This record gives sequence, C-alpha cells and structure tokens, in this order.
Amino acid sequence: MASPEIDALTQALSRLPGLGPRSARRAVLHLVKKRETALDPLLTALDRVARNLATCSTCGNVDTTDPCGICTDPRRDDRSLCVVEEVADLWALDRARLFPGRFHVLGGRLSALEGVRPDDLAIDSLVGRVAAGGIDEVVLAMNATLEGQTTAHYIAERIEKYPVRLTQLAHGLPVGGELDYLDEGTLAQALRARRPVA
Amino acid sequence: MASPEIDALTQALSRLPGLGPRSARRAVLHLVKKRETALDPLLTALDRVARNLATCSTCGNVDTTDPCGICTDPRRDDRSLCVVEEVADLWALDRARLFPGRFHVLGGRLSALEGVRPDDLAIDSLVGRVAAGGIDEVVLAMNATLEGQTTAHYIAERIEKYPVRLTQLAHGLPVGGELDYLDEGTLAQALRARRPVA
Ligand SMILES: [Zn+2]
Ligand SMILES: [Zn+2]
Repeated sequence: MASPEIDALTQALSRLPGLGPRSARRAVLHLVKKRETALDPLLTALDRVARNLATCSTCGNVDTTDPCGICTDPRRDDRSLCVVEEVADLWALDRARLFPGRFHVLGGRLSALEGVRPDDLAIDSLVGRVAAGGIDEVVLAMNATLEGQTTAHYIAERIEKYPVRLTQLAHGLPVGGELDYLDEGTLAQALRARRPVA
Repeated sequence: MASPEIDALTQALSRLPGLGPRSARRAVLHLVKKRETALDPLLTALDRVARNLATCSTCGNVDTTDPCGICTDPRRDDRSLCVVEEVADLWALDRARLFPGRFHVLGGRLSALEGVRPDDLAIDSLVGRVAAGGIDEVVLAMNATLEGQTTAHYIAERIEKYPVRLTQLAHGLPVGGELDYLDEGTLAQALRARRPVA
C-alpha cells in the first residue's frame, strides 16, 4: 500500500522494543510529516552512532568511544567496581547515577541449560582487573535469578583471594526479577543496602 | 552520562509518538546491541525515505514518489474520491484497505479560532479535480468534530453544483472522535454506512 521505502522503515521501527506495527506506523507518519524537526535529526543521530559504535575493551559497555565514557570519566571512583550481566544492566544502574564507580559487563550469566560456561563470559578479564589492584570493593549486581546468583557465587570464589570487599545487591530485588526492568527507587534501595557476600 | 551521540539518538527517538524517554533508552540499547539486525537496517530505511520523501502534488499524500503510490495505483477506482483532513487520516483509511478509490488531503480543517480559512486548505485543488470530471462520488471523511463538520459543509457547498454523489462517513463515529485514533472496525462500519450529504 505504502511505498517499499516507507514499508521498510515501518518494519525496521516496529522491531524496536516497545513499538508494535501500529505505533511504528504512527512514528513513520510523524517522521515524514516533520522532516526537519524529526526525520533529519533522527537520521543524523543514528548515523553518528552507527559510525562511532564501539564495545569498550575495558568494561564491555557499548558506547561511541573505546574506552567508554564511564571508564574515562575522571569523576568516578576507580576503587569501586560494579559487575553486571549485560550492558542493559549497566545502563539501568547508570541511568539514575546510582553507582559512582566503574563497571564490568560479563556479557551474560552462567547457564547449564544454555551451555554458558565461565570462558564464555568476561570473567577472566574481571579477575585481571581485580588482580591488578587499586580496587577496594567489587559489587556483584547479578540478576536475582538462579543463574544470576550462580554466576555471583562463581565470581565470588574466583575473587575471594584478593584483598577486596565483595558485596552484592541487597535482597529486596523481587525474586526472578530482571535488573533492567526495575524502577530506580528499587534499584537505589537495593544498592544502598548492599551487603558483604557471606 | 552516555556519550553525546547516544544521548542525541535517545532524544531523537523519545520525540516520536508512543516512545517516552524510558522506552527510547531501551530502543537505543537494542539498536547498539544489534547493530547488524537493527541499527543498520533502520539507518538504511530512514536514509532511503529521507532521500525520496515527497508530497504528492495531486492528492497531498506524503510518499517517496510524486505522484504518490495511491494516485498511480492502477487497481484503484478513479471515480471515487475520499477527502480527508490530514495525511494521518488517509493512512488510517488506507491501512485496512477500506477505501478502494483515490484520496484528497486538505491539510487541516477550517477553524475560526486558529484562523484557518478555505485558502489555507487544499480546497481549490479539490474543486479542480471534481470539475475536471470522471468522478462519480466524493466521500467527505472529515473528523466528527465541530471544525471537521464545518469543513465538510463548506466543501459540500463548493461541490454541489457538480454532477457527483456527495457522501459523508456515517454518524457512528464517536462525537469528538479523531479519525486517526479509531479502530479499523469502527472505520469500516462508518464507511459502509456512508450516506448522502443532506
Ligand atoms: Zn568502559
Ligand atoms: Zn497522491
């Protein structure tokens, strides 16, 4: 019905989380009607991100520079390191400026079911950062799922020989809850009440 | 916190209808994590639309060709013309292939309050199309608002001297309802029960 170009744009937008076919059509209509104020700025922004996209070789964050903006931010505390499963979790914690230190993205969680082993995650590089020294506290911010907690235990075993305080997010996360879906209040509370790993 | 490029993309997306700041962040995360399957296709699609965007000089539709795909579609009935206020209304009616004829987009509705006069709308060009002949029926598909109905009356007066059947969408549209927000069932029913303008 619409032109192939407009159909393709509608389809590309409808694959974004939170946008179904109907809202994608509405978004496309908005874009084509507001060329100067909507379409062109989005195109420019998308193009700039596409040109500069990089995975941080230090922490695993996705950003437009390597090392990423968090790893190079001089206002952050080098001595605190927060370990998360996914980039989405880093963004969730960083969104409300909840954690003032650095991050480490594992790229997943251990899973017997899905065949995810320690070598599949950025665990050796985490241990390397801890072994290099200068870190006082490692916060394990895994999801409150069985696999997340298994991953946290495994990392705790790998790190316990180093002189760092090892903490995890307070229970208070809803059981089975995925970090990335929590509101900032819950995240802030869980972070405030973080406790040493037993 | 995020890089300026990623912030700019988040902001550009959050201005789309249906996407707030939170879902825009989630969409950006999806885009940067799925470069090949999400970001690049969206960039390509957006770029193609931006390069080809055109307002149809016949009907006022926005498309990637001029005349638009609806005006050039040989399967459509030249003798039926559906007049709508906005491109959004054309898309709403066209979405479910409800109307098999051609369209005419006025670009708004008469409004004393907002100072919108007949000359501000594509009414002369509509009368021109009708005067040129070959049209049997003109369907006035204005919104069921005071201004939409005023616009319909004005157009009816301008067109009544021509040998066309002049119809309007059945009442059955919710009072104050905007065409673009109605479900397809309601639109289909209103179109089926269209009646001659009194
Ligand atoms: Zn980094
Ligand atoms: Zn057209």
